[in-house]
Amino acid sequence: MVPIKPYKKGFDYSYTLGAFPTFELIKGHPEIVKAVYIHSSFTDRESIVRLCTEKKIPVLTEDKIFHKISDKENCFVIGIFDKYECSLEPDKPHIALVNPGNMGNLGTIIRTAVGMGIYNIALITPCADLFNPKTIRSSMGALFKLRHQHFDSFQEYREQYQKHDVFTFMLNGTNTLEIQNCPKTELFSLVFGNEAAGLDDSFLKAGTSVCIPQSPDVDSLNITIAVGIGAFLFTHRSK
Amino acid sequence: MVPIKPYKKGFDYSYTLGAFPTFELIKGHPEIVKAVYIHSSFTDRESIVRLCTEKKIPVLTEDKIFHKISDKENCFVIGIFDKYECSLEPDKPHIALVNPGNMGNLGTIIRTAVGMGIYNIALITPCADLFNPKTIRSSMGALFKLRHQHFDSFQEYREQYQKHDVFTFMLNGTNTLEIQNCPKTELFSLVFGNEAAGLDDSFLKAGTSVCIPQSPDVDSLNITIAVGIGAFLFTHRSK
Repeated sequence: MVPIKPYKKGFDYSYTLGAFPTFELIKGHPEIVKAVYIHSSFTDRESIVRLCTEKKIPVLTEDKIFHKISDKENCFVIGIFDKYECSLEPDKPHIALVNPGNMGNLGTIIRTAVGMGIYNIALITPCADLFNPKTIRSSMGALFKLRHQHFDSFQEYREQYQKHDVFTFMLNGTNTLEIQNCPKTELFSLVFGNEAAGLDDSFLKAGTSVCIPQSPDVDSLNITIAVGIGAFLFTHRSK
Repeated sequence: MVPIKPYKKGFDYSYTLGAFPTFELIKGHPEIVKAVYIHSSFTDRESIVRLCTEKKIPVLTEDKIFHKISDKENCFVIGIFDKYECSLEPDKPHIALVNPGNMGNLGTIIRTAVGMGIYNIALITPCADLFNPKTIRSSMGALFKLRHQHFDSFQEYREQYQKHDVFTFMLNGTNTLEIQNCPKTELFSLVFGNEAAGLDDSFLKAGTSVCIPQSPDVDSLNITIAVGIGAFLFTHRSK
């Protein structure tokens, strides 16, 4: 067992902070979980101990590591796991995030994607750290429910996954996305840019560019909101 | 002029941190702005000085207050303004937030509401501090574009605004909100609960209870996403 240190991006392992994401981790990927720490004051040990025992995961109690790893006071369970990479499902809808910069946003987008039934996320680097405990917490553990894959460029992503109809979300997108005209396609990839910069104009030609209608009184929608509205429309429009 | 102190909730004034929200403040409510501080290293003084001069707002340069007030390094403009309360427009759509707990979420919801053309927000206390600089920053200054009113209870809100069709967003809502069945009403109030607790069951009878369809793989959507999807559907469904 490696000594317990505060998380850094370069680690090949990471932590889940809190009972809820730790449960999701164990249920989704038991084989990568190295250990679970439970604080001695945690009152709901039984179910998580049972799950760990079933999956042959060591359960440890060492209260002093909690303040080392977590800056939240209400963290009573910590999971330690090896980072992993997936490949995406070629026949399922994707969300592609180009250079997402904020870990909280990235986690919220993952939670939203899973909520909408989209289980494949492409991440174009540079990109916020998917395995930072903050991202995981913000995803409410939904990270462990989907497949993710990192790419050096959008082109690299498209070369691997060519069958998808691509929709790029841009403030200057050519097509205003309304309920009535939302494209009907089963195999789509919804592409969103960085929080500050958006997608550059080269993405106008990467597929069908769309913009979510919004009042002139805001500069733009928050990226998580744009993903929420876009994902809802594309997953519900044809039902 | 009062001495410059780090913001506290009990103050009857607050701060905008950054050029963008300060512009929005001055454009929306010039009469409440007491002063604007501009850091000596700020490179884009001219337009904000011109606006302040036009509105007869004192412009001050005192670099040492910046690290006192702001924890962000990229803050070069600070506005000081008196807090204010509005009354809502009785004939316009509302969003009502029951006990929102997180300032970042509250700001994002305000930005989203304005983006969807909803300019009236009811806040049921206890509630996150609307005027905390963090809320304002997260709203991207959209706070100054809408009307807000605090209420001690949802009943108090309804007694003042009785004409709205009320839609309560609840995980156990009776009506699944789909694109095809989104209610068509011009005067609506969309009601959302606290991040952790949601709306209690008494809200099942406060109007029409609705739930946003979501996969069983998430506990719930983030409240900001729920507001985004709900507000988009209600503002676009009948066009």
